[in-house]
Amino acid sequence: MIRISLDAMGGDFGPEVVIPGAAKALERHPDASFLIFGLKAQCEPLLAKYPKLGDRSVFHDCELAVGMDEKPSAALRRGRYVSTMWRAIDAVKVGEADVVVSAGNTGALMAMAKFCLRTMANVERPAIAGIWPTLKGESIVLDIGATIGADAQQLLDFAIMGGAMARSLFELDRPTVGLLNVGVEEVKGQEEVKEAGRLIREANLPTISYHGFVEGDDIGRGTVDVVVTEGFTGNIALKTAEGTARQISTLLREAMSRTLLAKIGYLLAKPAFDRLREKMDPNKVNGGVFLGLNGIVIKSHGGTTAEGFAAAIDVGYDMARNDLNAKIAQDLKIYHAKRQPSAGPEAA
Amino acid sequence: MIRISLDAMGGDFGPEVVIPGAAKALERHPDASFLIFGLKAQCEPLLAKYPKLGDRSVFHDCELAVGMDEKPSAALRRGRYVSTMWRAIDAVKVGEADVVVSAGNTGALMAMAKFCLRTMANVERPAIAGIWPTLKGESIVLDIGATIGADAQQLLDFAIMGGAMARSLFELDRPTVGLLNVGVEEVKGQEEVKEAGRLIREANLPTISYHGFVEGDDIGRGTVDVVVTEGFTGNIALKTAEGTARQISTLLREAMSRTLLAKIGYLLAKPAFDRLREKMDPNKVNGGVFLGLNGIVIKSHGGTTAEGFAAAIDVGYDMARNDLNAKIAQDLKIYHAKRQPSAGPEAA
Repeated sequence: MIRISLDAMGGDFGPEVVIPGAAKALERHPDASFLIFGLKAQCEPLLAKYPKLGDRSVFHDCELAVGMDEKPSAALRRGRYVSTMWRAIDAVKVGEADVVVSAGNTGALMAMAKFCLRTMANVERPAIAGIWPTLKGESIVLDIGATIGADAQQLLDFAIMGGAMARSLFELDRPTVGLLNVGVEEVKGQEEVKEAGRLIREANLPTISYHGFVEGDDIGRGTVDVVVTEGFTGNIALKTAEGTARQISTLLREAMSRTLLAKIGYLLAKPAFDRLREKMDPNKVNGGVFLGLNGIVIKSHGGTTAEGFAAAIDVGYDMARNDLNAKIAQDLKIYHAKRQPSAGPEAA
Repeated sequence: MIRISLDAMGGDFGPEVVIPGAAKALERHPDASFLIFGLKAQCEPLLAKYPKLGDRSVFHDCELAVGMDEKPSAALRRGRYVSTMWRAIDAVKVGEADVVVSAGNTGALMAMAKFCLRTMANVERPAIAGIWPTLKGESIVLDIGATIGADAQQLLDFAIMGGAMARSLFELDRPTVGLLNVGVEEVKGQEEVKEAGRLIREANLPTISYHGFVEGDDIGRGTVDVVVTEGFTGNIALKTAEGTARQISTLLREAMSRTLLAKIGYLLAKPAFDRLREKMDPNKVNGGVFLGLNGIVIKSHGGTTAEGFAAAIDVGYDMARNDLNAKIAQDLKIYHAKRQPSAGPEAA
């Protein structure tokens, strides 16, 4: 049984999306159970509509919900111990849940998760990993915005954590990992990135296969399973890709409605378009994973649908079932043991 | 008359693309004239095919061509004074041409251009500006890879130079300028970016309208006329967008050929697809502009077609006709005069 903790009040639509989303996820994972943290008045009528979910969940009425625009520090001050977000995270900390899923605001969720769960041993800073649709399937990109900047050692941590996530999500033995860089000769990249490349190569880890540098267009191509970068660049790459996809779909829609022939063509080809839309649908791969904390935290898009929230739960379910955090801890241990062969296991 | 200097040997196809491209550009700009620097054996037979271009151009036979994979330092060592690339740039320096266009390797072109033309007064570092297709038309994004990292003052220089380019290219009085940043609350961006925002706002320049921060998805949306960022992030954003566009077009092609109905639909809607392709075609907006040098240098994509190279010449033609560098120098002067009101004009 996988026990999933939900912040029912997160996201633009709160329980309207979270509860139907949980019901959908339960259909796919009948062995899941839920702890739902919400405001009773809003959640109870919705829960009543999903009796199967009701049977597999325990509802906890909370004092307040964190606002989508609330600053992390304010959310932490106001919502610690009492908010739906905090209590959903805390359920993982106290061992009542295996994973927590929230569509709440990213800054507040990260601040609370760090404060409540704390960063794992041997990890300096957590990262947010996104799942990116590619021509070959899916890749993991991290960090997509937990923090700004990263030194070589932190990038190496990201490589190890992203590798563990790829093993959990894609069930690969030794995922390929690339460092995001620019391709201009002799100016090749930031010092940290070059140094990280050296560190990862030298570490020669059994858990990942280091590919070398990759460029922006390699992400969508699916050149590697895991793309490692610091949070500023990662966030901008992600948003730029989302913007480009939206731009093309807008232009395509315009183009297809301009003439009668194009409209007929569109109708005939509609299943093909739908298939494409589904492939590129951010809801299908919804779920940023916070890596490097003592507990698995999944961030769903704030504006997602029930189907999208269910996809975020799917990611959380897979991460918990495959014991992501044990993999990360183990991989870090291997790395640190290799690095300091004289130190005992207690050093790792 | 606009005098255009061409490196005929640059790019994956050299004169095969450069000479027909120049002929196309000449049709659109009958007042243009060309200085063509190439290797005689390869260029002469091609030039013979375009007598109109022959009438409006002077060919200079050179000793050697810079390789597409040559390192900038090696290219500079081997090709200074004697290569087609160097001599094409030098024509601008000595005042024989108003602008130079090359599809040669970016690193070598920037190294030679810096060495030959030198950086403008009041500019610490040159930048490469790209023209980005958006939902509203086109925007300018810089730096897309001249150098890695930029401090606040350099970002401000980029804002001024990009603004001058937008005024030249889009014929706007006061283009809007945004600083590329991430939208995570309280972690909002790098210190340099925040500081640059303060500097640009305080400068309150008459030549640009400062919009504030923009995110990755604002680029394709066309939120601002000029997007300013440092070269690492800019290059990765550009390549990521190109990769996403290619990914969608591949998936679309696959989807449209999967069933008979989809194939028929595709045929009916083909003009609409072609229109979209044209809108998103990188060849249509081909031409990275090197900003901040004492001379206008246009970098065409290495793998472009004759049409794409002609588009790069178009950009160069517009930049020269609108006297881009005079605008940049003037705008920098306004900024520096405002900054040090006690100093005389000789300080600017």
